Amino acid sequence: MAKEVDNKEVVNREEDYSKWYNNLVVKADLAEQSAVRGCMVIKPYGYAIWEKMHEQLDRMFKETGHVNAYFPLFIPKSFLSREAEHVEGFAKECAVVTHHRLKVAPDGKGVVVDPEAKLEEELIVRPTSETIIWSTYKNWIKSWRDLPLLCNQWANVVRWEMRTRLFLRTAEFLWQEGHTAHATREEAVEEARRMVDVYARFAREFMAMPVIVGCKSENERFAGALDTYTIEAMMQDGKALQAGTSHFLGQNFAKAFDVQFANKEGKLEYVWATSWGVSTRLMGALIMTHSDNNGLVLPPALAPIQVVMVPIFKTDEERDAILARMGQLKAELAAKGLSVKIDDRDNLRPGFKFAEWELKGVPVRVVIGPRDLENGVVELARRDTMEKESVPQAGLAEYAANLMGKIQQNLYDKAAAFREANIVKVDTWEQFKEEIEKGRFLLCHWDGTTETEEKIKEETKATIRCIPMDTCICEEEGTCVYSGKPSHRRVVFARAY
Amino acid sequence: MAKEVDNKEVVNREEDYSKWYNNLVVKADLAEQSAVRGCMVIKPYGYAIWEKMHEQLDRMFKETGHVNAYFPLFIPKSFLSREAEHVEGFAKECAVVTHHRLKVAPDGKGVVVDPEAKLEEELIVRPTSETIIWSTYKNWIKSWRDLPLLCNQWANVVRWEMRTRLFLRTAEFLWQEGHTAHATREEAVEEARRMVDVYARFAREFMAMPVIVGCKSENERFAGALDTYTIEAMMQDGKALQAGTSHFLGQNFAKAFDVQFANKEGKLEYVWATSWGVSTRLMGALIMTHSDNNGLVLPPALAPIQVVMVPIFKTDEERDAILARMGQLKAELAAKGLSVKIDDRDNLRPGFKFAEWELKGVPVRVVIGPRDLENGVVELARRDTMEKESVPQAGLAEYAANLMGKIQQNLYDKAAAFREANIVKVDTWEQFKEEIEKGRFLLCHWDGTTETEEKIKEETKATIRCIPMDTCICEEEGTCVYSGKPSHRRVVFARAY
Repeated sequence: MAKEVDNKEVVNREEDYSKWYNNLVVKADLAEQSAVRGCMVIKPYGYAIWEKMHEQLDRMFKETGHVNAYFPLFIPKSFLSREAEHVEGFAKECAVVTHHRLKVAPDGKGVVVDPEAKLEEELIVRPTSETIIWSTYKNWIKSWRDLPLLCNQWANVVRWEMRTRLFLRTAEFLWQEGHTAHATREEAVEEARRMVDVYARFAREFMAMPVIVGCKSENERFAGALDTYTIEAMMQDGKALQAGTSHFLGQNFAKAFDVQFANKEGKLEYVWATSWGVSTRLMGALIMTHSDNNGLVLPPALAPIQVVMVPIFKTDEERDAILARMGQLKAELAAKGLSVKIDDRDNLRPGFKFAEWELKGVPVRVVIGPRDLENGVVELARRDTMEKESVPQAGLAEYAANLMGKIQQNLYDKAAAFREANIVKVDTWEQFKEEIEKGRFLLCHWDGTTETEEKIKEETKATIRCIPMDTCICEEEGTCVYSGKPSHRRVVFARAY
Repeated sequence: MAKEVDNKEVVNREEDYSKWYNNLVVKADLAEQSAVRGCMVIKPYGYAIWEKMHEQLDRMFKETGHVNAYFPLFIPKSFLSREAEHVEGFAKECAVVTHHRLKVAPDGKGVVVDPEAKLEEELIVRPTSETIIWSTYKNWIKSWRDLPLLCNQWANVVRWEMRTRLFLRTAEFLWQEGHTAHATREEAVEEARRMVDVYARFAREFMAMPVIVGCKSENERFAGALDTYTIEAMMQDGKALQAGTSHFLGQNFAKAFDVQFANKEGKLEYVWATSWGVSTRLMGALIMTHSDNNGLVLPPALAPIQVVMVPIFKTDEERDAILARMGQLKAELAAKGLSVKIDDRDNLRPGFKFAEWELKGVPVRVVIGPRDLENGVVELARRDTMEKESVPQAGLAEYAANLMGKIQQNLYDKAAAFREANIVKVDTWEQFKEEIEKGRFLLCHWDGTTETEEKIKEETKATIRCIPMDTCICEEEGTCVYSGKPSHRRVVFARAY
């Protein structure tokens, strides 16, 4: 009755990237489709990774002065119409609550919606919370002393996506949304930039994922924002994944919900706003940045299990002795802050266990057989390089703790090298079309118009991922790769998730 | 432009208990009504307390072997009908999603529901997740090796309550729901009891709230459960508050969703289930257990701020010197694990600050004036007893750390003494009616029938809160206080929230 884990069932990345991704998510027990269209179940192993992301991000938000709060799941329909661009962007595909009661069906079988219980005004399941939060802020903000107001919320949101993919695009997803209020434009812009930098730091240091920080073009901005900052990551198929965004909202929502504050001179002014969020989509980014044909590869900083120990034995006596030694080593590793699992299942062969933990991306595997026990060593295998070595049991904890840092760095370096190899400067339209087919990020001049941007998208499916903040790379004079008009800087084009 | 905090606006507990509670929740910045009927906004200070509860409970769940996962917000309507009693209990007042799109209104103003976008099957916003989870477990459980399955979920749920009260009864609330699957009845019963004990321990050790652990009568059981275990707390008006429940669900959901496992002999059997949950209702319980006419009183174990420091000064020079000293003391207190806030707002008088922090229930206030600075002392005030004393600055950290334990214990003892004074054994119907009017818990004999229970409820509004697990108190022969029929044990009757 043993569960069959068969890595062979994970199709090769090179063969079918999309299927490889899906296989991986399901086989590694991260998530699965639910009985509800477009909604996923996040399984315990996947949720444990999300918890680690949540925990670290929450710490970073608090260190930058933010507090958590909780706002309603539902938004009155009329709220969505208050901010003109916002309604355009969000009031389309969403879950609409129209009734508040079920009753027993006339035939006595099952339940039906009670037509008597129709809501006066429909409620929308939040696709994002700017409207309900700014309607609340109206009562919280009176004076400059109430500013800045720096709230974050961890919540579920719903966007009725037509085509869904586990973690990358689901009808319901988990996220955090920061919503801040400021006395001045400068302060709000600074906040929006600070938070995109927090996201970039999280991506680099914890996800071991290089990202490009930049501004969105007008076309790709959040509905209701004056500026959207983004972190863009390159997946292993060369496509871009928008991993987090931070918006400078100007006074749009303050005006829509009439939120004014008395400044130090006692004069009323509209409040300046930002919002910023990352979601369970980060799980998709993490998977697609590091994994291989053997399965998931997790950076130690986010791995729920950092070291797995597998005993090899023939007799019960050997088994008991090895497990006893593993228990001691586990305690030593735990004392160094490492999370360790001893896989003592008695119905599975070691080879099967190796494959399963490789599939699940555990950074380090430690194996002890009878001879290792005798010699006071372990066989240690790294998931990232698949290298094996013999390591003395004495000092294993320290060795493993150091190794975690090395693996983390190696994963980042590998991903950075891959990205480096797949970003090209292109200066002609022919080159653009050729390179985009190879699955690359293109650094090229663009004339700054939405029209050109849309034509390029039509012809190549490539979009402007961002106008990089790092001016050294991009600020130079040139001519638009498509229209030939003058341009002052290069932008990043790519096909995207 | 300073925000006005006026504790006088908190009505006296003795005058209007219900209004006192509501005043407190709002004035102490814990929560407020939102623009959406029955839904609350949990404000940062309230949410910080909930976060501490969440963190501690999560730790206790993990220590008892549970893992977190996440299941969809929506439940297909037909799922609710699968378990007969469950649909009866939960498919009544709930939020029903019928459409998935809005479109611009014909007159161009605002948005309307797109009639074209009607869902084939309506979706219910989860009032609890047994049905969607057991439909998922069907695919996760094949063999005895997959058991026990010990999952918990932190989530929002919606029940369309007609009369709502902040934290105590809201349309949307936050909670955790554990859902476990077991191979045997015994194991499932053991789990249900283990978790009610976890809740009791959390209530006592962290909330400083005494609770009675017991079984619900058939009438008060969770819809679909064979047994419901509960923790019942006494509020300061003598009413009972059900603070957490744990259900032994038998094989009801396994049968409804056809979840079977192959046992060691390879024979198929239905799985045994439990579910258990606590919610933001605990916030209401916490507030009503300890607070007084000056505001909130928080047990140190759950207080977001444990020590607040208020400087008293006339000159800028004094101010700078005192704040500098406070900074040093804060670091010393933080090193002992205490969370400290220095209230250096320059637009408020000290007396105003004292009142505000009393309202917010901060366990300890430390005041330093110029003379204190000179003498190397602070004035320390306890929120629970309102006592003040002079304490040397040297050793303050250790003193305060110890004091936290004493305050925590004192709050528990006070609540326990109050409860002790308000539980009475009653043996006649006259006595019952008299004592219930005083707002007390009644320990009395009951004949075990739903009929008697309902008659008592009709006549007195009192319900059976639980049949206590502590058999020493209750197991004795007697006759039913209402019907005069024989009874083998006393049960707890009270009016309840």
